[in-house]
Amino acid sequence: MTFRFELLQTDGRARRGRIHTPHGVIETPAFMAVGTQATVKALTPDQLEAIGTQVVLGNTYHLTLRPGDELIAELGGLHRFMNWRRPILTDSGGYQIFSLAANLKIDNRAAVFRSHLDGSLLELTPEKAVRIQENLGADIAMCLDECPPGNADAASHAEAVRRTIHWAERCKAAHRRADQALFGIVQGGTDVELRGRCAEGLIALDFPGYALGGFSVGETAQQTLDALAPSASLLPEDKPRYLMGVGKPEDIVYAVGSGIDLFDCVLPTRNGRNANAFTKFGPVRLRNASHKRDSGPVESGCDCPTCRQFSRAYLHHLFLANEMLGPTLLSLHNLAYYNRLMEELRQAITLGRFGEVSILPGGLENQ
Amino acid sequence: MTFRFELLQTDGRARRGRIHTPHGVIETPAFMAVGTQATVKALTPDQLEAIGTQVVLGNTYHLTLRPGDELIAELGGLHRFMNWRRPILTDSGGYQIFSLAANLKIDNRAAVFRSHLDGSLLELTPEKAVRIQENLGADIAMCLDECPPGNADAASHAEAVRRTIHWAERCKAAHRRADQALFGIVQGGTDVELRGRCAEGLIALDFPGYALGGFSVGETAQQTLDALAPSASLLPEDKPRYLMGVGKPEDIVYAVGSGIDLFDCVLPTRNGRNANAFTKFGPVRLRNASHKRDSGPVESGCDCPTCRQFSRAYLHHLFLANEMLGPTLLSLHNLAYYNRLMEELRQAITLGRFGEVSILPGGLENQ
Repeated sequence: MTFRFELLQTDGRARRGRIHTPHGVIETPAFMAVGTQATVKALTPDQLEAIGTQVVLGNTYHLTLRPGDELIAELGGLHRFMNWRRPILTDSGGYQIFSLAANLKIDNRAAVFRSHLDGSLLELTPEKAVRIQENLGADIAMCLDECPPGNADAASHAEAVRRTIHWAERCKAAHRRADQALFGIVQGGTDVELRGRCAEGLIALDFPGYALGGFSVGETAQQTLDALAPSASLLPEDKPRYLMGVGKPEDIVYAVGSGIDLFDCVLPTRNGRNANAFTKFGPVRLRNASHKRDSGPVESGCDCPTCRQFSRAYLHHLFLANEMLGPTLLSLHNLAYYNRLMEELRQAITLGRFGEVSILPGGLENQ
Repeated sequence: MTFRFELLQTDGRARRGRIHTPHGVIETPAFMAVGTQATVKALTPDQLEAIGTQVVLGNTYHLTLRPGDELIAELGGLHRFMNWRRPILTDSGGYQIFSLAANLKIDNRAAVFRSHLDGSLLELTPEKAVRIQENLGADIAMCLDECPPGNADAASHAEAVRRTIHWAERCKAAHRRADQALFGIVQGGTDVELRGRCAEGLIALDFPGYALGGFSVGETAQQTLDALAPSASLLPEDKPRYLMGVGKPEDIVYAVGSGIDLFDCVLPTRNGRNANAFTKFGPVRLRNASHKRDSGPVESGCDCPTCRQFSRAYLHHLFLANEMLGPTLLSLHNLAYYNRLMEELRQAITLGRFGEVSILPGGLENQ
């Protein structure tokens, strides 16, 4: 097994670590760029590497529908298919079938749903979720979990936890690839006692890493943030902890301070496509007419290829003219912003100064 | 004046030359990548440089409407605005106001038309076309010309030639920038005698380069090709010759053999966005299901970043999934194909073997 986690240092609850994978090292805390359909939207792997992207996330649900996991296996796996040489994590498809698919029917055996692409009837079992991810060949795979909506009642959350543990056992039993780590996913909503039961069940199965699921459904409310540190502390210290689908820069800082190591979120790329920039000075809306004559970069002091080469005025023009280069250049900057944020958090932990970290809220709601 | 043309060698009518500009040398015959709105669609300047793109074309009509030529001047000119360090040519806007704009009224004083963006009433005079292009600051600017449709009658063509010469005089008189070459445009349709009259009038004004306009309106029919060599031979040997808006690879080979030095065309980028590849083995439609499992590159033997890194199966997937990376990667390959074609033509002329050049038709009609 080539997978290994080193906990290098702690500062309060914040952790500085290193995940060794078959495709190289991930320095944590780390942000994963979302590459849903075997591409981080609008960007080449060369561009992602140039801004220090460490790891890309692929989506099992999307990739099994199109182009198909068996096809990707036949072509040498997801790394080769998308030409990404560094680590990849694939999610199990659980979140997507609960958020994108229609006509969901779920029981202990399987989740049955209709494809959002063509309406065809499909089913996902824990064994199938593992087989798909083994075909994709990511460095880190995720157990199939049940992810109820944030406003589900207590009984639904308890049922989801029971099923998530049951499915995790079956995923673990089905998993074969020695060059791939399989993580368990803790559900339980904002009920820390329920999270505790789920964590206990999963820890008994001894996974090489654990995720907290169900924290990004809907808004990141105070109730959610309050449940985070207690939930993270339920997990083993010597294993990486991944907070799925989070989040805004300020939420990431909060979560690192709660003991989380790994993150993924569509915000930097989605906001980039919508002309909204993250900067250390706060959000910048590049469609705003105030940028029409602005010869300065998107973010003063940023060393990303976009900020080194182009002005706000140019990006403003590209977005008004509906030119594809606008989304490309701004996605690149936003991911560079996230990568730099994580680098700064890692340095702060190393120096024992995590408590001094303070950032301006960078997110824009519902872009 | 930093502009200079060297005629290095000829092989039959084909010419091997070198255009010196303030932003570097253009080895001819050369293809110009079309960057209508201050961006070659979907590509960064770094990507264009990596495939050996020598010169980019900007569109006066589009840029004066949005973001405005005065704004671009204020921001340091078009090179700096779009961060393109190599030569730029801007057209005069003549072709666009005749093809894109509505409610055209034209007389000797000016062309009056409505913006295709917001319907506002605008007018372009020869003096204004020059001033706009001086604001943009391209290395090569074009005189305002009248470009009648290909099927216009003889009287319309004759009138267009009279007006084009009159406007060229006024452009020349208005032109001030010593670091910018102003080319004349020969009109006259497929009537070689009329082309001769136009060329004579322009040559008397002693421009540093000449273009043939009106050859790309509609299809490149045999009648058009037949008029090409006689029209090119009307132009001075010691000045560069630019065939505007052409064209398919086979048309470019034919035109180089007729004595043309410079080309521009939207085909490589437009076809790239539409999943259609140019290859030395003929056209490849990447949406075709036959590429679903194809692990080979778009063009076997091609050393462009797309072919070195990605399979046809991956590009097929990107286009089916409507991912922006598909248009980016295929535009890059198609421009690399055009750049390599020109490089091969230059080598063939240098070796005195232009007559042996033979290519498979690479274009796809009306994609």
